[in-house]
Amino acid sequence: MAYLVHRRRLTAEWGHCDPAGFVFHSRFFEYFDTSAWALFEAALGVAPPQLGATFDIVGIPLVDARARFMAPVHFGDTIEIHSTIGEFRRSSFQVQHRIWMGDTLVVEGSETRVWAAADKDDPAKLESRPIPPDVIARFAAP
Amino acid sequence: MAYLVHRRRLTAEWGHCDPAGFVFHSRFFEYFDTSAWALFEAALGVAPPQLGATFDIVGIPLVDARARFMAPVHFGDTIEIHSTIGEFRRSSFQVQHRIWMGDTLVVEGSETRVWAAADKDDPAKLESRPIPPDVIARFAAP
Amino acid sequence: MAYLVHRRRLTAEWGHCDPAGFVFHSRFFEYFDTSAWALFEAALGVAPPQLGATFDIVGIPLVDARARFMAPVHFGDTIEIHSTIGEFRRSSFQVQHRIWMGDTLVVEGSETRVWAAADKDDPAKLESRPIPPDVIARFAAP
Amino acid sequence: MAYLVHRRRLTAEWGHCDPAGFVFHSRFFEYFDTSAWALFEAALGVAPPQLGATFDIVGIPLVDARARFMAPVHFGDTIEIHSTIGEFRRSSFQVQHRIWMGDTLVVEGSETRVWAAADKDDPAKLESRPIPPDVIARFAAP
Repeated sequence: MAYLVHRRRLTAEWGHCDPAGFVFHSRFFEYFDTSAWALFEAALGVAPPQLGATFDIVGIPLVDARARFMAPVHFGDTIEIHSTIGEFRRSSFQVQHRIWMGDTLVVEGSETRVWAAADKDDPAKLESRPIPPDVIARFAAP
Repeated sequence: MAYLVHRRRLTAEWGHCDPAGFVFHSRFFEYFDTSAWALFEAALGVAPPQLGATFDIVGIPLVDARARFMAPVHFGDTIEIHSTIGEFRRSSFQVQHRIWMGDTLVVEGSETRVWAAADKDDPAKLESRPIPPDVIARFAAP
Repeated sequence: MAYLVHRRRLTAEWGHCDPAGFVFHSRFFEYFDTSAWALFEAALGVAPPQLGATFDIVGIPLVDARARFMAPVHFGDTIEIHSTIGEFRRSSFQVQHRIWMGDTLVVEGSETRVWAAADKDDPAKLESRPIPPDVIARFAAP
Repeated sequence: MAYLVHRRRLTAEWGHCDPAGFVFHSRFFEYFDTSAWALFEAALGVAPPQLGATFDIVGIPLVDARARFMAPVHFGDTIEIHSTIGEFRRSSFQVQHRIWMGDTLVVEGSETRVWAAADKDDPAKLESRPIPPDVIARFAAP
């Protein structure tokens, strides 16, 4: 199945760069997170803060994140983040992110997130829930 | 009145520094925030997450923050943050922070925070409350 | 003198918000910093990483930053940052920032920065330099 | 071969936590980075800012980072980060990090870093270099 790809452009900010002059790696995980929310908004038509109430979940908490850094990004560089679903599993899913600078792939990574609701017996705990088929369907590439 | 001074040491981290090699200024506001919580814990003997429940407030939200940066702090430099109450007003207070590197004052700043509870009629709104005298008393220097 | 106003829109990101659900204050100082660079680019037509080489300076280091937080900004809120020169002094200047959410002024702050070059005798040290009149002239409102 | 384990304690800060009340995941990558530098300092007896000059490299840039998040860490929670070498390869190495809250493993991750020097022909480029055997030897568990 081909999934919708969300794209956004960013310019690397001074405060995101380290003494080597490169975007510090933790910032890419921030970029991924924001792109994941934006992908959900693009697919589902629901603003991120309303995601929980709309689908009766508490959120889409992250359980795994990883990235490979192939080329440095400097202050002022313009990058484009392409984000898409890598896989839907029963109650979790993987979001893939690729960051391009022109034609060069500079960072590649993924996030695994859970479709999570509050436990009925203990609302302070989360439990995973099956992702509704109509949610999955809306991520299909147009 | 002389107030308790909280001191803590920090080493400037790589990811906190910018391409000039200096701690990026937003990080000092993070340091101030953490020192403000630590000052409260030292004075009141209450762990920060329990502050709200203990004093029937929702928190001590920040309404003003400022800092002067007098000398750069580099990756690996050890600094000491001294934090104390500048002033208690009726329902707000000022926390003063001075950051020393050896005998050199490198950053000086302050935060103004409000003693805030939920509005009775609209719990989503905050309203300031008078700071209890026994809270103020516990900040006296020993 | 009326100065150019730079405006940019931002959406508050999940990772910028604290457990109260509001954008954590240090992030606003990051927003200010990025807007200051963008104002310079808009006025001078020089990409931020080339600012130093173009004007024979090492940068525009910050020596003072302050902000008043008048209303909270939540995850997903769209804000608009308006940035302009508050004042040019001989070798320093003040940048004023106002953050609007619709018609509500939610944050107001300023940065003081220095027009700084390397000391001739000790390149590791910075010294302030007079801001060239033609630099100042380019910040005039159109 | 058994390698030295570096341990440090941290308390989760307010500004590190997201609206769910948990430490935001990008912060764990900051914690990993700081622990990696501290592990190097513990093994080599060289302060991180002097690492480059001491070993004639420009640094130990990150090329891969990953983490699994098994349980949330809340504001005020005390965690302990255990960091050690997972593997030395010819010119790169893996650092493993485990974060414990009491007896519970809450985050597990790794970083792959390169022993990198400036390219002789183009100092703006980095090239990997073989890790000296005496560097590796100093990471042996005592």
